[in-house]
Amino acid sequence: MSTIDAVLARIDTDLDASLDRLSELLKIKSISTDPAYKADCRAAAEWLVRELNEIGIEASVRDTAGHPMVVGHKNSGKVGPHVLFYGHYDVQPVDPLELWNSDPFEPQIVTKDDGTKMLVARGASDDKGQLMTFVEAARAFMAETGDLPIDVSILFEGEEESGSPSLHPFLEANKQELSCDLALVCDTGMWDADTPAISMSLRGMVGDEIIVRGASRDLHSGAYGGSAQNPNHIIADIIAGLHDENGKVALPGFYDGVLEVSDEVKANWESLGFKVEEFLGEIGLKHPRGEKDRTPLEHLWARPTAEVNGMWGGYQGAGSKTVIPAEAHAKFTFRLVGDQDPDKVQESFRNYVRSKIPADCAVEFIAKEGSPATRLDTTIPAVAKGKKALKDEWGVDAALVGMGGSIPIVGDFKRMLDMDSLLIGFALEDDQIHSPNEKYNIKSFHKGIRSWARVLDELSKS
Amino acid sequence: MSTIDAVLARIDTDLDASLDRLSELLKIKSISTDPAYKADCRAAAEWLVRELNEIGIEASVRDTAGHPMVVGHKNSGKVGPHVLFYGHYDVQPVDPLELWNSDPFEPQIVTKDDGTKMLVARGASDDKGQLMTFVEAARAFMAETGDLPIDVSILFEGEEESGSPSLHPFLEANKQELSCDLALVCDTGMWDADTPAISMSLRGMVGDEIIVRGASRDLHSGAYGGSAQNPNHIIADIIAGLHDENGKVALPGFYDGVLEVSDEVKANWESLGFKVEEFLGEIGLKHPRGEKDRTPLEHLWARPTAEVNGMWGGYQGAGSKTVIPAEAHAKFTFRLVGDQDPDKVQESFRNYVRSKIPADCAVEFIAKEGSPATRLDTTIPAVAKGKKALKDEWGVDAALVGMGGSIPIVGDFKRMLDMDSLLIGFALEDDQIHSPNEKYNIKSFHKGIRSWARVLDELSKS
Repeated sequence: MSTIDAVLARIDTDLDASLDRLSELLKIKSISTDPAYKADCRAAAEWLVRELNEIGIEASVRDTAGHPMVVGHKNSGKVGPHVLFYGHYDVQPVDPLELWNSDPFEPQIVTKDDGTKMLVARGASDDKGQLMTFVEAARAFMAETGDLPIDVSILFEGEEESGSPSLHPFLEANKQELSCDLALVCDTGMWDADTPAISMSLRGMVGDEIIVRGASRDLHSGAYGGSAQNPNHIIADIIAGLHDENGKVALPGFYDGVLEVSDEVKANWESLGFKVEEFLGEIGLKHPRGEKDRTPLEHLWARPTAEVNGMWGGYQGAGSKTVIPAEAHAKFTFRLVGDQDPDKVQESFRNYVRSKIPADCAVEFIAKEGSPATRLDTTIPAVAKGKKALKDEWGVDAALVGMGGSIPIVGDFKRMLDMDSLLIGFALEDDQIHSPNEKYNIKSFHKGIRSWARVLDELSKS
Repeated sequence: MSTIDAVLARIDTDLDASLDRLSELLKIKSISTDPAYKADCRAAAEWLVRELNEIGIEASVRDTAGHPMVVGHKNSGKVGPHVLFYGHYDVQPVDPLELWNSDPFEPQIVTKDDGTKMLVARGASDDKGQLMTFVEAARAFMAETGDLPIDVSILFEGEEESGSPSLHPFLEANKQELSCDLALVCDTGMWDADTPAISMSLRGMVGDEIIVRGASRDLHSGAYGGSAQNPNHIIADIIAGLHDENGKVALPGFYDGVLEVSDEVKANWESLGFKVEEFLGEIGLKHPRGEKDRTPLEHLWARPTAEVNGMWGGYQGAGSKTVIPAEAHAKFTFRLVGDQDPDKVQESFRNYVRSKIPADCAVEFIAKEGSPATRLDTTIPAVAKGKKALKDEWGVDAALVGMGGSIPIVGDFKRMLDMDSLLIGFALEDDQIHSPNEKYNIKSFHKGIRSWARVLDELSKS
């Protein structure tokens, strides 16, 4: 039996224990955006350090101004590229909690009507399940051979879901230690349940939160309605004016730096057989929103967007309260593509918002860190090796796809550490990441571990 | 000493005890709109019945499908009009609780820098403080003379702040018992701190709450942004389109039945010396919103309005969550004037909302009871007697004013019981009703009690 076959066999035998370990990690409430879970984030980092050390990858918790990083190394002076594996141990908030069928932090294995088995928990897919596919692949190699086929470093972040404020300073301060030949990132998805994918572009993101203030206190709408400014209406005007009647974002200069997709890439995308009615049908919708003259895959992978992720003002309780609130709030995110500049987008947005604020009202901005979009080089050898490994595991060619989401670190790796990334992940569209009842298919987890074992093996070949 | 002078002297002596009794009532959390406070509403009704019976007004708690009514009678076959006094014992919700300087249900006497003493609590002004001015006036008469100068019935409602759903059936079922010669209503305000007022018109109101639903679950804005409908944006479009660029409500037919104010009334209003900069300055604003071609007093008393009292959708917690919510919500109220028809306004609003809902999204409406606007007859004798009583107490002529708010029962009294109303109240613009730190000046309470004693005395004169 070849080494890789022995490693794969061990992965199969060890699957239940691998799931138990993932469940342990999923029980830790590492919600990075909410300060109430600070200690849980540290606990997740410490748990990962213990796991890596147990496997034989020397690792430590590394403090930052925010949540800690986990860094590990297994350097044996192997030939082949030295890779840095990246994942994040933090998760999204769980609200609305009442829509979960079980406790988000008590992982459950659920079998669907069609026999699909899945692990349900916050972070099961994004990104604890995904990062553990690599950890378990490394564990199998270490157990079988006492080493990894190539030198490996590890970087697990705890602030990916909250804008990664500590990432730049950390990469800057540890440039030498973290600069490797190639980054492996497991935070993306499959093309479909049977077809793996390598992601070749990622959208960037910039966010902003606004508080619009009117009167110095909440008012009675009978006494002041029609006379006093209502921040709910001001916020609504701001949101309504963000898009024009064709679905384009109406901020001046917003599309500066947006690149047209080449005919070649367009043809490649068309060959994927993307069906918008299935994509939207799965979530109970039918008609694509957004720019009217663009295809749905362009919307998703190649066009920028503006979305209000949250808004609130006034009375939300049962019944009615005839109030004009003193303030109203909204949280915005913009997904960026091509060469769009996050700072310029934010500036244009803020100027637009200020132009909508009546003279006797005020606006406060709460900034979120921004990151530009990233395109990856399809010609590097790692892409070919990754495709070979994925075809061996899944029996079909991997799709080269774009990504609607944002993984800012991929751009940072390139710009700050001059390091290309290979983006392979096993999430599915119906994983409900960021939503109630997030899940990761057992098949994604199992074959994900096997895929990483094969990728490490391929990368070790000259 | 004349009878009225003896009664007034007793009111002065008894003030501290009157305040203690009001404080007892204010401690009862009778928030009618929130089902969690159902028992508290009943407790407030029972407390009032005990008070009335103690004074010598035979009263009882009367069940309805919602919160109970309090009905009392003191019939001695007196000459002069038999009056029905109306007030409401329910109060508005208290959120945002963190903006209160003290517990809303632990009344505090606070002295302002200028020496003004006030009682701070939810309901201190609206309407527990106001209704107790009448109860205490009645108490003083009963204590001093063993009777009231005219026959009096009492109706205290517990659903005024939540649309009065039980009122129509109750009036209908008890028409004979409640039909009197005149209603006295104490739920309105003074012109200013030194000038009493009699309200001659009240706006009507109709409300609606909408839930807009998009995808079947919350979505990741990276995966679905730009493609899937975002209910936050749909709600914002609905709100933004409610008014045109001149501040007029843009619903078809909305202004049907709105009457122009006569030149005579306009001249009367101008003589009041209303200063918009003071009116808005007190709440930290400067510039009147609303229809550009109307005066501020027209906005307030003679023009209809559309206000969003609450809106919410998506993530409201700390930090960011890149979600496209499955649903978003908004609560609307329309203040009505003249002959506007609440049903037609609601229908026009709903048609407008439906026209804004994308084909694959849905809207649910949660109706609120509506009521038309009310105009009062200034020529009835009770108005002249009320003016005389108020001038005797305050030393200046009472202003005949409009009211921006809505007291639907005044219209119901006229339409269902053929009964005119005399609207006298002692609230001030800075009472912060419906807001945190609601208060009632001790002067309003004290001179309010004295005013009602004088009104009862005047009404008893032929």
